[in-house]
Amino acid sequence: MSDQELLPHDPSRRSFLGKSALAGLAGAGLSVGLAACKKPEGDNAAKPAAGAASAASHGKYDVPPGQLDDYYIISSGGHSGECRIYGLPSGREFKRIPVFNIDCMSGWGITNESKAILGTRPDGQLKFKTGDTHHIHGSYKDGTYDGKFFWVNDKLNARVARVRGDTFECDKITDVPNVQGHHGIFPDKRDPVDPAINYTTRVFAGAEFHIPLPNNGADVDAPEKYGCLFSCLDAETMEVRWQVHVDGNMDLVATSYDGKLAASNQYNTENGIHYEDMMSAERDACVFFNIARIEEAVKAGKFTTIGTSKVPVVDGRAAKNADPKTALTCYVPVPKNPHGVNASPDGKYFACSGKLSPTASLIELALVHKWFDGELKTQRDCVVAEPEIGLGPLHTAFDGRGNAYTTLFLDSQIVKWNIDAAIKQFKGDKTAQPVVDRIDVHYQPGHGWTTMGETKEADGKFFNSGNKFSKDRFLPVGPLHAETEQLIDISGDKMVLVADHPAYSEPHDAIGIRRDVIKTRQVYNMDDFPNAVKDPKSQRIERNGNKVTIYLASQAPAYSMREFKVKQGDEVTIFLTNHDKVEDLTHGFGIPMYDINFVVNPQETKSVTFKADKPGVFWCYCTHFCHALHLEMRSRMIVERR
Amino acid sequence: MSDQELLPHDPSRRSFLGKSALAGLAGAGLSVGLAACKKPEGDNAAKPAAGAASAASHGKYDVPPGQLDDYYIISSGGHSGECRIYGLPSGREFKRIPVFNIDCMSGWGITNESKAILGTRPDGQLKFKTGDTHHIHGSYKDGTYDGKFFWVNDKLNARVARVRGDTFECDKITDVPNVQGHHGIFPDKRDPVDPAINYTTRVFAGAEFHIPLPNNGADVDAPEKYGCLFSCLDAETMEVRWQVHVDGNMDLVATSYDGKLAASNQYNTENGIHYEDMMSAERDACVFFNIARIEEAVKAGKFTTIGTSKVPVVDGRAAKNADPKTALTCYVPVPKNPHGVNASPDGKYFACSGKLSPTASLIELALVHKWFDGELKTQRDCVVAEPEIGLGPLHTAFDGRGNAYTTLFLDSQIVKWNIDAAIKQFKGDKTAQPVVDRIDVHYQPGHGWTTMGETKEADGKFFNSGNKFSKDRFLPVGPLHAETEQLIDISGDKMVLVADHPAYSEPHDAIGIRRDVIKTRQVYNMDDFPNAVKDPKSQRIERNGNKVTIYLASQAPAYSMREFKVKQGDEVTIFLTNHDKVEDLTHGFGIPMYDINFVVNPQETKSVTFKADKPGVFWCYCTHFCHALHLEMRSRMIVERR
Repeated sequence: MSDQELLPHDPSRRSFLGKSALAGLAGAGLSVGLAACKKPEGDNAAKPAAGAASAASHGKYDVPPGQLDDYYIISSGGHSGECRIYGLPSGREFKRIPVFNIDCMSGWGITNESKAILGTRPDGQLKFKTGDTHHIHGSYKDGTYDGKFFWVNDKLNARVARVRGDTFECDKITDVPNVQGHHGIFPDKRDPVDPAINYTTRVFAGAEFHIPLPNNGADVDAPEKYGCLFSCLDAETMEVRWQVHVDGNMDLVATSYDGKLAASNQYNTENGIHYEDMMSAERDACVFFNIARIEEAVKAGKFTTIGTSKVPVVDGRAAKNADPKTALTCYVPVPKNPHGVNASPDGKYFACSGKLSPTASLIELALVHKWFDGELKTQRDCVVAEPEIGLGPLHTAFDGRGNAYTTLFLDSQIVKWNIDAAIKQFKGDKTAQPVVDRIDVHYQPGHGWTTMGETKEADGKFFNSGNKFSKDRFLPVGPLHAETEQLIDISGDKMVLVADHPAYSEPHDAIGIRRDVIKTRQVYNMDDFPNAVKDPKSQRIERNGNKVTIYLASQAPAYSMREFKVKQGDEVTIFLTNHDKVEDLTHGFGIPMYDINFVVNPQETKSVTFKADKPGVFWCYCTHFCHALHLEMRSRMIVERR
Repeated sequence: MSDQELLPHDPSRRSFLGKSALAGLAGAGLSVGLAACKKPEGDNAAKPAAGAASAASHGKYDVPPGQLDDYYIISSGGHSGECRIYGLPSGREFKRIPVFNIDCMSGWGITNESKAILGTRPDGQLKFKTGDTHHIHGSYKDGTYDGKFFWVNDKLNARVARVRGDTFECDKITDVPNVQGHHGIFPDKRDPVDPAINYTTRVFAGAEFHIPLPNNGADVDAPEKYGCLFSCLDAETMEVRWQVHVDGNMDLVATSYDGKLAASNQYNTENGIHYEDMMSAERDACVFFNIARIEEAVKAGKFTTIGTSKVPVVDGRAAKNADPKTALTCYVPVPKNPHGVNASPDGKYFACSGKLSPTASLIELALVHKWFDGELKTQRDCVVAEPEIGLGPLHTAFDGRGNAYTTLFLDSQIVKWNIDAAIKQFKGDKTAQPVVDRIDVHYQPGHGWTTMGETKEADGKFFNSGNKFSKDRFLPVGPLHAETEQLIDISGDKMVLVADHPAYSEPHDAIGIRRDVIKTRQVYNMDDFPNAVKDPKSQRIERNGNKVTIYLASQAPAYSMREFKVKQGDEVTIFLTNHDKVEDLTHGFGIPMYDINFVVNPQETKSVTFKADKPGVFWCYCTHFCHALHLEMRSRMIVERR
């Protein structure tokens, strides 16, 4: 690893990055970021670059064959469009959850059931086959995960999806109107008004890209009229309840433990359309939403609608919310182009990372409430600390012991800083030293998270750094590299690098959940499927004109129908119910040359519809290994010539 | 883990499985397979069920952060339609290689370049978006891998694809005519005639499903007229050179080190259409192809063609090849419904597993040549050993030290057996004990492979068992389970279970390659792309009627065009060249609401074409994290109303 530093090692490195410095990053500057383990900066707490687990501790984090991991990692999958489940500390990937993508293994995007969730165009084609899942967060009860639901957003096509915690399958997708580039998402943690409702009932999503409202071809050349909306979905129905029109572009979303506040960090409050304009102002903001007031306004009819959408939209722009006592929003100024906003597990603070400033801004929620009550002079007074922590701070996680861990994209480090020390320093205590440890990561960390760190049960065991570059960390596999998920033991005073786990681009963000929280089912209930072929003997073929429906059952090693005939040109629907009851005894159903494959789990029913446009013999076969006679498990589809 | 055994523990367990026994497997019988670690069978070499690495050895197989793995695992991905690269011993997944599937991360199935490889229908839609990749094997030189190419077959839609070893991307896909259900594939290891050509020039694929020839709607009710073809592709051009019409259904394919023979194990030589018919005969076969003779026959015009296909088809059915001296094929009888045929690294034998027989049949290649020379009485005389090894033997791998390792699907074990001892026993030596070790795996192993085991450089370090059920081995994630790849250290006398690696269904098969064999490139050559936008200043918009072409470049943190305008209804093509040269500095390009995303690696060019059917502002954005100003990296597409 290289010790070189290409950027001048002058004090200005620790102040705001100017426009020219960042332009420089486009060329040589970025190489700095990409240079491996750099020398410690002379920080009082800087540690030797190595930082990896010592030889003696190897095996300590092993999960031997037959043993289970301690945590689930539920991960968004970025532009793979999927979500994923890993184990921790092993880093083993247990499942891909297809969401916005097409997955021909499971039949996601192929079965009628998944198409109904994904949505289709008038011609029956899928509305979208791409997605960019950014953030996944779980439902809460009493301030911690209840394992019931997970929500994930699609930045590419402005959608929010829900994944069930019992089956780890996506059950609903909502197209959110009037927005482009959903970046952040977060469920609420309890009701803003009713103290009896101490669980998740709403999901918030922030839009990043400002667009004409409505985006129908009008105002395309008038960027000053572009706008961004913050959306609230009902956690149960997944309908969009309301939207708030705000200034600036929103990234991440955080919610308070009291249920009353949601927030999003914002860049481009300049409303610029070029990147240098987007970073021209010295400060952007973290915008807070007063949920109860917004819902009162909606109830009172103080909203508009946009274009053909019927979703109520309230005006949360700064100019219209100058009076704190009636304001729906509170814009807390933070250094420009921040990235990431995260809630501390004690419920007191949100941390907003500087990105282009070497700082994190700590915002005290009690002071935000105070501002909304008209008792604070300026929004900026909500900031209670702003420690200098390193270059390119993006996301912050917490250990539940009063420390924060922030990813430093440019420094390729994780910095551990103490919240109380940061507050003392901000108050003028020059002896306070917020930064208590640093560790090099490899390379360019984006998101970071701690085990249970988004809950009141933050346990301070592990921090995971989601690194955007892996370069030389794995065997080379061509120009496209894996990303690196680096696992760090944070249980002691010093951070210890435990493992490099590669991930197919891009895991983006994840949460680490204690394994006892998750309660899955292993077998479906046949009654949950209205079209189940409950008795294999009820297998049949129904014809209605040129529409043919095949009711089929599977039980290893055979399908209930050994052959079936349809006519060329028929529209064929096949319902398949898996009668096997043994856990893990999933069957597949592939139709050669007809581009169809899907799996049916034990006691599950799925269906496909296709046009029998090719005459001949087609051996439908079991694609999911099931039995010693798996290969012999077939059904012969005969498409007779018209 | 349970000790129970549900099947009666009588001697008949060790003889052929009858029709009724297998029918039973459909119900309770399969549960036997699913029962965990069973009692050792009293075999002389049976070892305690545990077999896992001892606590003391934990950490021995660790790959600590910053260290590289010793081997590449190149894996087929089953009905996920993709291939994958893992590291060994870590089990870490470094890359997914999209092949027959759609991958919205990389843009596979979305870019024009990938669509050209995948093939499209007249309406521009992809011909197929599903696939069932079964077997992946690498190109050979001097009897070992040269790392140049890998070939993988699609069982679902009868295709063969090639993956380049320098970029690990698919560069060609061939639709193979006249076949259904390609199961096995294998490249040749040298030329059958020219001794100077000691590298791969042909790829063989065996079809499993018998269909009317041609499959155009005729003869659908005449199964006796159905047939299967064995295909030969040119390794370089990927064109189909010839096909052989055979009896029976083909599974796996193996090739000899002398280049002269290819073989496929066959079930359903009965030509049955129901599974009980497919297992009615006591013997099926391993069919050998005399490559030189087949190519002579083709050259001599002794072939037919089928339907609209122009591929020469020779007749390799048994009845037409009764005279060994002119035969194109040699059907070596083996116990019924065998599964798997594998070449020993010494070049002498092919092992064919019994599946429904508890045996493996060892076929000596010199004797097959002898049969083709008319010097052997019967084809069955090619079998030189048939040891009883356990229930449900499927695939065999080798350690280069004279031992074979066979997966036992029903026993959920790997059995290690000695080739010489098996031959001695077959000759009548009652003291010979072929089976030297057994280890339980979890559960139901399909494919198994050893490091470098398919080459003359078999090193006998590791065996990997690809298990079809994982049941209780990982944290539960709902009804759909991962599969288990279990890594076993075979370097000593006793097999040692090292790790459980989960895999998204289904890895199917893989090969383990020493890391020095693989030579990848990290950055593309811009000149390789005819449409490269070589100078960012040459970025431009060209209009031809309603066809608009955008020539765009990317360089962190910006696209060369900050905005571009098209008109509603235009057919828009975007060429994007990534000018970044730093390894791992990949950019993405996503167009919101237009269902487009793809990545461009350093110095690479890709393109997409779409209809601008929605007016408004669409912020094309970088989807692949690249730079501190990644979020600000956008280009504004304005679609003006007509």
